[in-house]
Amino acid sequence: MNIILLSGGSGKRLWPLSNDIRSKQFIKIFQAPGGSHESMVQRVYRQIRSADPEARVIIATSKSQVSVIHNQLGEEVGISVEPCRRDTFPAIALASAYLADIQKIDPEETVVVCPVDPYVEADYFEALKALDRQAAREKAKLVLMGMEPTYPSEKYGYIIPGDRLPVSSVRAFREKPGKREAEEFIAQGALWNAGVFAYKLKYMLQKAHDMTGSSDYRYLFDHYENLEKISFDYAVAEKEKQLQVMRFEGQWKDLGTWNTFTEAMEENSIGEAILNETCRNVHVINELDVPILAMGMQDVVISASPEGILVSDKEQSSYIKPYVDKINQQIMFAEKSWGSFRVLDAGDESLTIKVTLNPGHRMNYHSHRNRDEVWVVIKGTGRTRVDGAERNIRAGDVITMAAESRHTVAASTELQMIEVQLGRDISVQDKQKYDDDYDLRKS
Amino acid sequence: MNIILLSGGSGKRLWPLSNDIRSKQFIKIFQAPGGSHESMVQRVYRQIRSADPEARVIIATSKSQVSVIHNQLGEEVGISVEPCRRDTFPAIALASAYLADIQKIDPEETVVVCPVDPYVEADYFEALKALDRQAAREKAKLVLMGMEPTYPSEKYGYIIPGDRLPVSSVRAFREKPGKREAEEFIAQGALWNAGVFAYKLKYMLQKAHDMTGSSDYRYLFDHYENLEKISFDYAVAEKEKQLQVMRFEGQWKDLGTWNTFTEAMEENSIGEAILNETCRNVHVINELDVPILAMGMQDVVISASPEGILVSDKEQSSYIKPYVDKINQQIMFAEKSWGSFRVLDAGDESLTIKVTLNPGHRMNYHSHRNRDEVWVVIKGTGRTRVDGAERNIRAGDVITMAAESRHTVAASTELQMIEVQLGRDISVQDKQKYDDDYDLRKS
Repeated sequence: MNIILLSGGSGKRLWPLSNDIRSKQFIKIFQAPGGSHESMVQRVYRQIRSADPEARVIIATSKSQVSVIHNQLGEEVGISVEPCRRDTFPAIALASAYLADIQKIDPEETVVVCPVDPYVEADYFEALKALDRQAAREKAKLVLMGMEPTYPSEKYGYIIPGDRLPVSSVRAFREKPGKREAEEFIAQGALWNAGVFAYKLKYMLQKAHDMTGSSDYRYLFDHYENLEKISFDYAVAEKEKQLQVMRFEGQWKDLGTWNTFTEAMEENSIGEAILNETCRNVHVINELDVPILAMGMQDVVISASPEGILVSDKEQSSYIKPYVDKINQQIMFAEKSWGSFRVLDAGDESLTIKVTLNPGHRMNYHSHRNRDEVWVVIKGTGRTRVDGAERNIRAGDVITMAAESRHTVAASTELQMIEVQLGRDISVQDKQKYDDDYDLRKS
Repeated sequence: MNIILLSGGSGKRLWPLSNDIRSKQFIKIFQAPGGSHESMVQRVYRQIRSADPEARVIIATSKSQVSVIHNQLGEEVGISVEPCRRDTFPAIALASAYLADIQKIDPEETVVVCPVDPYVEADYFEALKALDRQAAREKAKLVLMGMEPTYPSEKYGYIIPGDRLPVSSVRAFREKPGKREAEEFIAQGALWNAGVFAYKLKYMLQKAHDMTGSSDYRYLFDHYENLEKISFDYAVAEKEKQLQVMRFEGQWKDLGTWNTFTEAMEENSIGEAILNETCRNVHVINELDVPILAMGMQDVVISASPEGILVSDKEQSSYIKPYVDKINQQIMFAEKSWGSFRVLDAGDESLTIKVTLNPGHRMNYHSHRNRDEVWVVIKGTGRTRVDGAERNIRAGDVITMAAESRHTVAASTELQMIEVQLGRDISVQDKQKYDDDYDLRKS
């Protein structure tokens, strides 16, 4: 099975755990086999591998998510990087061209597209395989998956099928309706449109050509900024005559708010937390190193991260967005392809950060114009290069780098450093990268 | 007026703002003149100064509070330091001897004793002055202040007065009663015993001599550990025949729980906090640098400090102690006489701290056996001495100190440093101090 996972935008609905650079699909709150916690993207990737060990998985996403995807899924996962955000049709066209041109997939092969963030079980992946098989039969150009509605939701589009068979033609699409209308649709046997579908690769390449003038990956990538912002539903699905829908009745949950998100938690707390015996339906997710004590709370979510602390009634939590939009907090924590960083202290003319570099990883060779930096190694071993001079480093070593000095570091074992940045105009933009055509020798 | 303020023990009832080294009286949550916030001890000290600019204030406390008292009240405040905790009679005897021997107060002068932590207004200090004048009249050896009860509390002792006059003899004392008994006492005109009283200094010196064999400050200090643990009520008040009680009807609040503590707050939040419009009777005290967002909460206190986060129903908050007793969190923040420190990161073999040194202050000259240290100056100027060698320092400078190396630093302007401690057995106990008989030259 070829599967394109659409990994969507930033979103702050799960603040303080999601923010401008960390989307909800990267928050590790689900119990993983072995007792640790995994994120939605890790969970779905593991589930796909389990359902189909041969599956070819491509993640269609923006540049800002590449680091965290590599951090969470490893370096080998295929990523179709969108140069900018352009809605779902350009994203799917680009990823399809990536499959054809880069991964050399035969255009006669089928492709399944689905969002990365629904919370599902094994039956969903069996249904994806059935969807894939149905697309291979070419009874239709496009086969959608329609979710059996569990309530008259106003936040989904509806698919009106031609009949109530497991696989049916599509009579019509309906945009997000009001509640009354949704009830009527459901009475007619309508299904939620969840953005899950399958097609033969050649079909989407033809659509890309029709809409943009080309199905060439390089062309689409280079001209991505100029492609029309248009959704897949509007550009393709709603216009396609040879269309089928396949019903899915299993669990499919969109964990878009704290209320729904915590419903999927198997424990009441993750991280250091104490809930006294008078707490009812309380969920705590604590990413800080200090304990949270909750007493006498009911129907409440408490979430703490280096970015902030949320204490909310679960119902109320769905109204979080305007409040969080007003918060102008700098990024305090980020997972990168090479490891992670956490801001420890922000002063007027200094920024102190804890940097963790994974074994075998390294930073780019770079310099800063407006700040000096000091590294104090607190754990592990590695090797630095500063203005051309290399040295091995280990816990206790101090490396000072004046502004304009070129520097990098590579980790032999997991390397932790306290980085102190000093200067008047400290900014992530102040970074010049240099050619990287040498290897730090093994320490 | 001579006034002994009893500054009591640690207590975790206001965790995470109070802990083993920070008692509730040092938490800055009250609006101070000028718009900043002040602690209980700062508030009561300011109120005394306002009621009687000539007042001589002695704070009777343990060694562990000396630093924070100097930090909050300045270096000039008189402190009678108890070498260990020995209940109220030894503490009052020692402080009285301190007044006589160290501050050279005439034994004919009067002394007022009161706890540092009730929340009171100006009328209370006028009442203290009246109590002081009454003691000067020597109609009795000891004059107690009796608080008009506002409810049948089970947590106070009661004083049964001889009559209902403003100043009366004392008929009897009653230990903390049950609720029914308390109601009866109140019906009889009983008053709360709040541990507030006045006497002539010679009286308490005589009591010290009677109970311990000496009223000499040096003797009491040196033998403090061997003094009997006994309360002032039990040792003195309940045995005294020539005893009076003076009624006080003004505001006197014991802010011992989060519930009562937040009642005294004039704002709903201190620190970075957003309360949405569905919050009712919510108080947030946030000592962290990141925002707290509260949504749909009612009758709740939220408190965050570098030690942890509390989210509690206000009623429930009075049951906090057993939960907090189980938390074994290292001290993450402390105010010292010389400034403050905050733990930024605790690793397996490292500890990263932000140290702030107030202008003109310095550390002791010291060394550590089991750890190296690195200082990175992030703000201000000062001077270091490391193994005898002195140098001026400023933002950007890095000072490395191997284990056993003797070192100190003095601040010219407010000096902020990131201190990284490195070693296997990092402990606050690992500190050797050296003679301090030199001055760091001015930088």
